[in-house]
Amino acid sequence: MGDTGTVPSLITSPANPRVKALPALRRRRTREEQGRTLIEGYEELRLALDAGIVPLTLFYCPALMGQQALADDLPGRVGALGTELVELSRPAFEKAAYREGPDGFLAVVDSSPLGRRCADLTPLLGDAPLLLVCQGVEKPGNLGAILRTADAAGVTAVVAADPVTDWGNPNTVRASKGTVFSVPVASDPTEVTLAWLEEHRIPLLAATPSTDQLHTDVDLTGPVAIAVGTEKQGLTEELMAAATHRVRIPMVGRADSLNVATSAAILLYEAVRQRG
Amino acid sequence: MGDTGTVPSLITSPANPRVKALPALRRRRTREEQGRTLIEGYEELRLALDAGIVPLTLFYCPALMGQQALADDLPGRVGALGTELVELSRPAFEKAAYREGPDGFLAVVDSSPLGRRCADLTPLLGDAPLLLVCQGVEKPGNLGAILRTADAAGVTAVVAADPVTDWGNPNTVRASKGTVFSVPVASDPTEVTLAWLEEHRIPLLAATPSTDQLHTDVDLTGPVAIAVGTEKQGLTEELMAAATHRVRIPMVGRADSLNVATSAAILLYEAVRQRG
Repeated sequence: MGDTGTVPSLITSPANPRVKALPALRRRRTREEQGRTLIEGYEELRLALDAGIVPLTLFYCPALMGQQALADDLPGRVGALGTELVELSRPAFEKAAYREGPDGFLAVVDSSPLGRRCADLTPLLGDAPLLLVCQGVEKPGNLGAILRTADAAGVTAVVAADPVTDWGNPNTVRASKGTVFSVPVASDPTEVTLAWLEEHRIPLLAATPSTDQLHTDVDLTGPVAIAVGTEKQGLTEELMAAATHRVRIPMVGRADSLNVATSAAILLYEAVRQRG
Repeated sequence: MGDTGTVPSLITSPANPRVKALPALRRRRTREEQGRTLIEGYEELRLALDAGIVPLTLFYCPALMGQQALADDLPGRVGALGTELVELSRPAFEKAAYREGPDGFLAVVDSSPLGRRCADLTPLLGDAPLLLVCQGVEKPGNLGAILRTADAAGVTAVVAADPVTDWGNPNTVRASKGTVFSVPVASDPTEVTLAWLEEHRIPLLAATPSTDQLHTDVDLTGPVAIAVGTEKQGLTEELMAAATHRVRIPMVGRADSLNVATSAAILLYEAVRQRG
């Protein structure tokens, strides 16, 4: 451990109440009640730390760690931030861990930054916000991939409209490679999201196969919210009716051949290109 | 079953040699020796049929099928193509199946179209081929996602240079949603791939973070091969040295935040935009 920071405590029993409480954070309701979520795994934790996250508690198990993790003393680094450190025995860690082949790192973090509403994003808007609105996307892997691209493209924020999962879902956190903590995110019903966009005069661009206008034919240099829906359902009529522009990504193959994360990437990078 | 086509046979024993031979096709060596691979699942099979694939044999199990699969009589449709039909008992199907929760469809298909080399693609090149070269990509999920995008973008072909997995990997087949059968694919060592591109005077565009030139600053309207590497390793020095252009996708977040499938999508769709 480092010279300064938290002194670790030790839990050896899998029946310890703190150990038993960790799997409960796999449930959305528990996450929302407690305002906390989990970051599991060395790589995921390292990326979250790089994004400035200070975990509330780090549970760790040296017996499960790989060589690199042992070598760079991540618990010491995290303890120096003031995070509570709890070393677990292997049986206790395996009880607490979710994924197969746990690598000895499980952090509890404040998920309140992931619980924002659209109104909370207002101070971030600036002159020409580039927003991404994901409607009804349910797969955590897709949401995570979208966040990675949104991070790279430098979006102002990503809004989940009528989300099926919460941003704090541990699988979304993992798939995002920590970017869920670096990209501003919010969730709201579609109706609230649309009203907020209108209030701030942000044009809405809806991606749909049912139009002749290409996504490259629209000016994306000003304020804009790009909306993508699920592969199966697309965007709702409510959202389509509110759209300022309807655009399609040209596809010569099957109409459903781009997944939502790929579509988001193509649209966001067209905006990046135009904003050059 | 349909009025014409194959009469199904029935296998009830999980110990039947044909049943026991199916899991062997999970191994690359067996696939390459037999020139066959597997398509598992109703949706995956339907997409492959849409791409014009005629399976050699369809193993199916009505007891495991969902309502939609039962309603549209996929075995009858496949049998009408001349495919051998083999009905399996539930214990036999579960022995043969790979994925959890099998849905009663497992097709054996000729994988020789997936075994092409670069030279086999020469007749497809035309005046201004748009090729994608994936070097060293190992995750079947990424290869599948790349194929879906390549299908949508209308590429001439996708080449796996120094591939870690074969195109016939059942997980690649599944992740591609059948597009591995609609997009021409080939595999070759990097050296052979580069020599073939040079022979046909196809400029090579290498995506790398280590350059100032943006991908949008290069003319992609003529013949071009776009090369992408793995997230961890990037492209090899051998390939970088052979590149006509080195370009980067602008990223304001972390340098590693775009995955290889996302990078491929952004680059291919820039070519689509320019070729408009």
